[in-house]
Amino acid sequence: MAAKSTQYLSIIKVTAGNGSVTTDALAIEEPLEIRLEYGAEGQRIVHNVSVTMRTPGHDAELAKGFLFTEGIIKNATDVASTHHQFIACAEDKENTIQVSLIPTAVPHLQNTERNFYTTSSCGVCGKGSINAIRTVSSFVGLPADQDVVIPGILHQLPAILKRHQRVFTDTGGLHASALFTMQGELLLLREDVGRHNALDKLIGAALAYDWLPLNQTVLLLSGRASFELVQKAAMAGINIIAAVGAPSSLAVQLADEFNVTLIGFLRDERFNIYTAAHRVLIPGNDAVATDSSIAVENT
Amino acid sequence: MAAKSTQYLSIIKVTAGNGSVTTDALAIEEPLEIRLEYGAEGQRIVHNVSVTMRTPGHDAELAKGFLFTEGIIKNATDVASTHHQFIACAEDKENTIQVSLIPTAVPHLQNTERNFYTTSSCGVCGKGSINAIRTVSSFVGLPADQDVVIPGILHQLPAILKRHQRVFTDTGGLHASALFTMQGELLLLREDVGRHNALDKLIGAALAYDWLPLNQTVLLLSGRASFELVQKAAMAGINIIAAVGAPSSLAVQLADEFNVTLIGFLRDERFNIYTAAHRVLIPGNDAVATDSSIAVENT
Repeated sequence: MAAKSTQYLSIIKVTAGNGSVTTDALAIEEPLEIRLEYGAEGQRIVHNVSVTMRTPGHDAELAKGFLFTEGIIKNATDVASTHHQFIACAEDKENTIQVSLIPTAVPHLQNTERNFYTTSSCGVCGKGSINAIRTVSSFVGLPADQDVVIPGILHQLPAILKRHQRVFTDTGGLHASALFTMQGELLLLREDVGRHNALDKLIGAALAYDWLPLNQTVLLLSGRASFELVQKAAMAGINIIAAVGAPSSLAVQLADEFNVTLIGFLRDERFNIYTAAHRVLIPGNDAVATDSSIAVENT
Repeated sequence: MAAKSTQYLSIIKVTAGNGSVTTDALAIEEPLEIRLEYGAEGQRIVHNVSVTMRTPGHDAELAKGFLFTEGIIKNATDVASTHHQFIACAEDKENTIQVSLIPTAVPHLQNTERNFYTTSSCGVCGKGSINAIRTVSSFVGLPADQDVVIPGILHQLPAILKRHQRVFTDTGGLHASALFTMQGELLLLREDVGRHNALDKLIGAALAYDWLPLNQTVLLLSGRASFELVQKAAMAGINIIAAVGAPSSLAVQLADEFNVTLIGFLRDERFNIYTAAHRVLIPGNDAVATDSSIAVENT
């Protein structure tokens, strides 16, 4: 049974000052509570890890992807089972999912009290966070036999994404994350109202397929690239991230730190390379000087 | 001293397969930890409320707006002072802000343990959240002498927003929230890498100006309208929300519940009205039937 991701309702459409009643499709947004059950037999503990506003569908992937990209679990084999739970006040909605670990798996929960910012040991300092990722992930910065991509392939990706973004086409309201081969072949796509959820679903699915590390793929983001998205991608070993929108300063800093290639504004037959340009085969590539230390103030 | 919101660095710009080195502007993204100091004299407590990834600037507004829209404080007069703190590992960065309440103010912190989802008593159930907002906010659903807007005014708002979105023009990387009068006059605009932060900054500023309740203004959102944004707007008494992007299902449900007028896809001389259409003066308005109970499944 597939979950509902779209809802229809009557609205008034106004064009040139005139209103008419019509039917519109909305992207569904609903809370999902992720619970983690772990511990030796007879001493099992249930811990509420997170509540996220997500589009229903692929909830198990979302939960496992979240636990992995936040460094709480290290392998798909840590997970014994996942199942939805039904809460009285939420009636028939699948708004709680419990991930049960095998008795020998030990989750890394020490940092989850600090809100979403779960991989940071400090919370207000990039360094703490970066060190935490280095410690937790065995995939960060893993070299690949073939991790070079040509511009002609990159230019094609947004159109492929758009063709496959089914729910977005209906609602105009969803973010997407997609994985491609170096030759531009679409491997996997996930959509969600939250951009971090779309990526967690994607990585959760890749984890289930035993595809990690993802060091020979290109990750395409339908919107902007934030620190959080680069962090999650790095956890899965992704070396090339291309975003249709703009990157933030901290996304660039983290990508630089991890030697991840970060591409932004991939649209209209052009793009910008912010970090690790050696993975893109272009003329003039040797001239790059991506040095965030040259940043100057602009108020 | 204004905070840095833009950073420059060298990148490679690729157009039609050719690369050239150029300078690009990035929207700055940095963590801000919000601390709350409260209690009677001699018994002061400091509580870490939240860490959010934000664009530096207007941090005091962000902190106060966040505390207000999450229902932790009820009035601007609860706040005695705000000041940045400098953490050793973050060096010279203003990444911690402490909000000190007056000794008699009692913050509502009981729900802040549940991640960002702070106004919800249940976490996975819209009802709990809606009831919590009703209890906490004295502004929700407050009537106004004049709360009707005409389409001609609405059509003008995105262009006004764009003209004033300074950092977005440079970086292409920021969300904006803006307040307008019913006649389409811009009152206030705030930008941030996080859409919830842009709105918290806006409401924090309005709170400082003693403008609340905002029941005779139009809120314009540069992107999509999520549950969280409608929730925050409702806390400030905003009755009309217009978004350039799509609303989510839960945003529409909450707006409907609070009798807030929710407008989406406000661009290219058209828009959709999702709820409380009586506040928009258009022909054919009486025919509206915004009934979310007619939702049908689409997998």
